[in-house]
Amino acid sequence: MSDLGHRLVELLGAAHVLEGTDSPDDAHDESLAVAHGTPAFVVRPASTADVVGIVAACRESGTPIVARGSGTGLSGGANAPDGAVVVCFDRLTDVTIDDVDHVAVVGPGVTLAQLDTAAREHGLTYPVRPGEQSASLGGTVATNAGGMHAVRYGVTRAHVLGLEAVLVDGTVVRAGGRLAKVSSGYDVVQLLTGSEGTLALVTAVVVRLQPFLPVRRTVLAPFPDLPTTTAAVARVVGSGLAPALCEYLDDPTMEAICAAADLSLGIPDDVRAEADAYLVVELVGRRAERVDEDLAELGELLTALGAPDVYALPEGSARRLVEAREQTFWTIKARGADEIVDVVVPRSAMAEFIGRSREIGAAYGSRVLGCGHAGDGNVHFAVFQPDPDALESTLHEILAAGVALGGAVSGEHGVGRAKAAALAELGDPGALAVMRRVRAALDPDGLLNPGCGVTPT
Amino acid sequence: MSDLGHRLVELLGAAHVLEGTDSPDDAHDESLAVAHGTPAFVVRPASTADVVGIVAACRESGTPIVARGSGTGLSGGANAPDGAVVVCFDRLTDVTIDDVDHVAVVGPGVTLAQLDTAAREHGLTYPVRPGEQSASLGGTVATNAGGMHAVRYGVTRAHVLGLEAVLVDGTVVRAGGRLAKVSSGYDVVQLLTGSEGTLALVTAVVVRLQPFLPVRRTVLAPFPDLPTTTAAVARVVGSGLAPALCEYLDDPTMEAICAAADLSLGIPDDVRAEADAYLVVELVGRRAERVDEDLAELGELLTALGAPDVYALPEGSARRLVEAREQTFWTIKARGADEIVDVVVPRSAMAEFIGRSREIGAAYGSRVLGCGHAGDGNVHFAVFQPDPDALESTLHEILAAGVALGGAVSGEHGVGRAKAAALAELGDPGALAVMRRVRAALDPDGLLNPGCGVTPT
Ligand SMILES: Cc1cc2nc3c(=O)[nH]c(=O)nc-3n(C[C@H](O)[C@H](O)[C@H](O)COP(=O)(O)OP(=O)(O)OC[C@H]3O[C@@H](n4cnc5c(N)ncnc54)[C@H](O)[C@@H]3O)c2cc1C
Ligand SMILES: Cc1cc2nc3c(=O)[nH]c(=O)nc-3n(C[C@H](O)[C@H](O)[C@H](O)COP(=O)(O)OP(=O)(O)OC[C@H]3O[C@@H](n4cnc5c(N)ncnc54)[C@H](O)[C@@H]3O)c2cc1C
Repeated sequence: MSDLGHRLVELLGAAHVLEGTDSPDDAHDESLAVAHGTPAFVVRPASTADVVGIVAACRESGTPIVARGSGTGLSGGANAPDGAVVVCFDRLTDVTIDDVDHVAVVGPGVTLAQLDTAAREHGLTYPVRPGEQSASLGGTVATNAGGMHAVRYGVTRAHVLGLEAVLVDGTVVRAGGRLAKVSSGYDVVQLLTGSEGTLALVTAVVVRLQPFLPVRRTVLAPFPDLPTTTAAVARVVGSGLAPALCEYLDDPTMEAICAAADLSLGIPDDVRAEADAYLVVELVGRRAERVDEDLAELGELLTALGAPDVYALPEGSARRLVEAREQTFWTIKARGADEIVDVVVPRSAMAEFIGRSREIGAAYGSRVLGCGHAGDGNVHFAVFQPDPDALESTLHEILAAGVALGGAVSGEHGVGRAKAAALAELGDPGALAVMRRVRAALDPDGLLNPGCGVTPT
Repeated sequence: MSDLGHRLVELLGAAHVLEGTDSPDDAHDESLAVAHGTPAFVVRPASTADVVGIVAACRESGTPIVARGSGTGLSGGANAPDGAVVVCFDRLTDVTIDDVDHVAVVGPGVTLAQLDTAAREHGLTYPVRPGEQSASLGGTVATNAGGMHAVRYGVTRAHVLGLEAVLVDGTVVRAGGRLAKVSSGYDVVQLLTGSEGTLALVTAVVVRLQPFLPVRRTVLAPFPDLPTTTAAVARVVGSGLAPALCEYLDDPTMEAICAAADLSLGIPDDVRAEADAYLVVELVGRRAERVDEDLAELGELLTALGAPDVYALPEGSARRLVEAREQTFWTIKARGADEIVDVVVPRSAMAEFIGRSREIGAAYGSRVLGCGHAGDGNVHFAVFQPDPDALESTLHEILAAGVALGGAVSGEHGVGRAKAAALAELGDPGALAVMRRVRAALDPDGLLNPGCGVTPT
């Protein structure tokens, strides 16, 4: 074992320091097409002081540091380069629910499922819900995760009120707190949220909780074509009905997830045959009669906007459909998708973006299927293309099309390693200049997650 | 005129370059106790290119640059040091409302009143409402302004989706866009929001608009003491009724604003005599019957929480009371207040914070009155103390008490010049270290608003 290894063992105990070769699963996330190396060590701190010690040991030996939450990321952000130290946060799992201020103080290793379960005991909920509830608080903060409920509640950064984090020089930063708002200098909480382990290691998180709304109703609306579908989205979001989710799925994706979940939604065959895409919209509230009344209004709105029929789903089917939608990634992975793409565009540009992406796919012989958090203009594609060059070209042109329409290379999965080159090429040069200067100011030697996020030049 | 002056005239035309001595009102904001100097020039750019030119001229002559919106700030953020160039944004006033994506693209010189009026023509609203509707978009973004509606809609940073800004080296930064969410590198929009003209000059803003909710109902509830009042706030906010405002006023402040507005609220004398503080809560919605039903529920809740009686205000009185509350600053200024303080604490700590602040006031013979955005734990005090040393000590100890209770030196007015020393002394050292490195990285020569915000060391 190297000097670094001995030092880490001294700090954490042998049980919490693995050789990289002994822990291959900790070397990467769930991204489909991003390479990773073999880390030197995988370590498990149990305290902020441990993290400070790890950072000191790595700094002195010039070793890159990669933070790892639950490894459910889809952009290779937690993929370790050769020789790095991977810091796993699954021993930092404290959860404190404060039901007066409606906040939770949690360790970065706490999963979304754990936090939400703890909150629900107090009649509260943590509404951030990317598809994967095993994702960690540290990871979701670091990627600024979105998910289905963001259309109503906002993405992760709307919920993070405070952070404790360790800089590469060992400085412990405590920013924000149990505070609904603050205007006392630059918002370090917001700067670190979404920074993908490149500026600091997050050791504690304070998040806002929401009152849990017990009533939920879900409708499914088939649409004849994509422009009609996405035009309806803007009207649904703007209606004041405040949907808790507003998802679109194209017909092949709907077919795939229903098949995978063995789910029949009771839509007549002739309606399905005519449908090019679907909207799934959920309303929530405190009182059943109001939500039902709103549901009727929503149904009329969707019909007026071009849905030939609107299906109010029974609770069980609704839940299973939403779960199947959350599992889309596993479904399309099982069907052999070669990569998935996450792009955000203005809501009004969604139809054009999806149309262009299908054309790009056709030009390269790539199959491009999709669904997404339509209420946020956030589109996810599954791309099927076994040839690496054609895949690369397809992905690149899709990202470029999104940016050309006023969008960004990632809506919620983060830049990671998958999109570092695309961000450098397609991002605004001025915004990139700010990012680079900030990164260099906080990590001058480039030890934090090198290769992930904004590139040095 | 100096070389700098000639260069600025060449760039902008003589009509848009004033000598500082000719434009004294542009040298300061509305803060009561913050000194200011005499700027060399006050300039009015009409385009982003003009701003780039101004920055270049200032940089080459080593001249400090102070951005100025409407000058309604309360922390001296726009107070010019001697010899500075003040950049006024009141010629950058374009407003574009996009009623598909529900966003507005506006110049920094647009006022809140102008933006909201434009949005309302489309059935939309910009819900950021600090007391002063003449505040500019540039200024409210730069201070991360809050106001009454933040309890429901969030502070300014919850609404800012995109920014164009000019760095001191002339780089034009375009960050974010008409996008509901994004996770593509550090959030430069959030970094610049709240940066008080110390990192960049904001030349355009993209904000999210909300559907306008036509029905509003307001209740006024007297409470026997402060702990009961603030305990009720947490329950009201947590009820799921989603109030659009939740303000507290102590009895002297209520008396003062009612007198100033010549407003009688029809509360019996014996109830007023027993009241130590009041809550004003507003509910909004799309349908009158629902808001009325919620209002009844709110009334019962407030009674159960200790209000001897609850008064549903007729629309006219409600509007006048809210306006009078917005005018509190002018009222207490007219009554001779020597300074106002804006502190945020966890909601649960409000009563203790207000209690301690009153004790601090008593110890120094200072009169300390207050009101605030209670739903956010945001307290505003008026401090009456003619002796400068005793005033200084009172203010300092109040800020320290807030921070000791988990709060921050400013909830919404910003650090400005008023609280630069307090932030440096009371802020978390780690968070301050991040702020200083970021400031030095973007403005190495310290030309942008020197003296405002985080201090260099
Ligand atoms: C089936 C499926 C569905 C998904 N659906 C969605 C979705 O709808 N929306 C969405 O946004 N995402 C979705 N994701 C992606 C993923 O769940 C999120 O990106 C999540 O935020 C990753 O959390 P994690 O704990 O697994 O982080 P990891 O994958 O372990 O790491 C993610 C990034 O965060 C960094 N990081 C982790 N912990 C820390 C820390 N403590 N300090 C600093 N940096 C840290 C890592 O270095 C890495 O850059 C989905 C994933 C799957 C598998
Ligand atoms: C009666 C009254 C009530 C108020 N109530 C509230 C309240 O409830 N909540 C609240 O939050 N505030 C309140 N305020 C304070 C004030 O309205 C806000 O701070 C507002 O954001 C200031 O906007 P402004 O355009 O006047 O900015 P200014 O005072 O001109 O400037 C404020 C800061 O922003 C910077 N700045 C201005 N424009 C730009 C730009 N384009 N680019 C970069 N930096 C810029 C300045 O340098 C300065 O640091 C109140 C003020 C008054 C007078």
